[in-house]
Amino acid sequence: MKKANTKAHAAILVIGDEILSGRTQDVNVSFLSKWLNDLGVKVTEVRIIEDKEESIISCINEIKEKFKYIFTTGGIGPTHDDITSKSVAKAFGLKYDFHKEAYGILEKYYKPGEFNEGRKKMAKIPEDALLIYNPSSGAPGFIVENVFCLPGVPSILKSMVDGLKDKIVGGKKILSKTISVQTVESEIAQSLENVQNQFKEVKIGSYPFFRLGKIGVSIVLRSTEKNKIDDCHKQIINFINKKNIQIIER
Amino acid sequence: MKKANTKAHAAILVIGDEILSGRTQDVNVSFLSKWLNDLGVKVTEVRIIEDKEESIISCINEIKEKFKYIFTTGGIGPTHDDITSKSVAKAFGLKYDFHKEAYGILEKYYKPGEFNEGRKKMAKIPEDALLIYNPSSGAPGFIVENVFCLPGVPSILKSMVDGLKDKIVGGKKILSKTISVQTVESEIAQSLENVQNQFKEVKIGSYPFFRLGKIGVSIVLRSTEKNKIDDCHKQIINFINKKNIQIIER
Repeated sequence: MKKANTKAHAAILVIGDEILSGRTQDVNVSFLSKWLNDLGVKVTEVRIIEDKEESIISCINEIKEKFKYIFTTGGIGPTHDDITSKSVAKAFGLKYDFHKEAYGILEKYYKPGEFNEGRKKMAKIPEDALLIYNPSSGAPGFIVENVFCLPGVPSILKSMVDGLKDKIVGGKKILSKTISVQTVESEIAQSLENVQNQFKEVKIGSYPFFRLGKIGVSIVLRSTEKNKIDDCHKQIINFINKKNIQIIER
Repeated sequence: MKKANTKAHAAILVIGDEILSGRTQDVNVSFLSKWLNDLGVKVTEVRIIEDKEESIISCINEIKEKFKYIFTTGGIGPTHDDITSKSVAKAFGLKYDFHKEAYGILEKYYKPGEFNEGRKKMAKIPEDALLIYNPSSGAPGFIVENVFCLPGVPSILKSMVDGLKDKIVGGKKILSKTISVQTVESEIAQSLENVQNQFKEVKIGSYPFFRLGKIGVSIVLRSTEKNKIDDCHKQIINFINKKNIQIIER
């Protein structure tokens, strides 16, 4: 187990049977990772877990000290299988009841007579939680300590994160540069390793692809230091040229 | 933490910086989950972790007793950032060296003179591991105890799993039935909860959707018992009809 982490690292916790069963393709991880990266926060772990109170509670207790930020997606809607709010309350030992501000928001959002029991449930949020406003469908998300709870519907989630920027203190932004070449990985593996050994501050990833009938490799350089990425990039272009490998994108 | 689990539950461990950074959209989880479900194995957790030896080792050690099967994806290629095989060997205290059978397969696969260092690396597999054959690109995956290591490239992964069916002993297959209706969740939340309370053996999930300009909810029933799903389905159709809600799919 890792110790408490003060770096700007985040975990994403996807709460959703529908993702685990393969019925629904998650797209929130990719969106949140890029959005967080732009704020200087690196996502270093993702977990997808069941809609089960004990799973949510034990997972949050296990990881809450390890990451600066934890983002949950899913399970804050009006139906019986939406148990994130209640589980987060339990994980932090907080009361789970109507949240005055959330109740007020929802009461105003719905027409008179339409604020039914299901909708009222969405105002049940852990005690004293800070709300995350929802410009698309009213029902807010919330923040308890370092845990940010967002909905699972991608379009709603996307509409809500803008209001969070001032709540997040990131580190240096991780920059990246991609070189795509027309070759197979094994042709460049040794040269790439040599370059990696020279640049400890740059993480070099190698990803084969097959698209439009072409075989290729995308070499992705990642670092917080722009000049290191540039130097590393030059060295890679050098050996690629020496090997007469065609560059698709640089 | 869960205790040792003898049920046919599986975890998927996605090893990949490129997924965590949001650069690449994972599609293997959804594929593997459906494939395993057809064999009677339920995926109950997914973790996406960094290409870091310590992360892989600690994760495998943490979860190997909790699940009947663990599937890893990614990190078994020829480049320096492919560290799954070495890390799995370390997690199980096994020698990591050329695997005779894997070496033979790759030597035969490549033309004379083309079996270079990078390619030879793909024959380095934990000692005595059982191989998972690769009909598309030669380099095998492998099995150590309950850990099945597969590549990250989706088309290659898909081509390899067929050969695994006889290695997996599942339980009862989880059946599912979906009812899609034109309404919002809060209109059916209470009735759905009432039905859920009557059917403990069926897990009812409620998933809102917005597509083709239509707002709707997919109600998904999951159970190993076909007759329970059918009974539960009837009850839901009943209250949907009573509420005069339009059924899109039943």
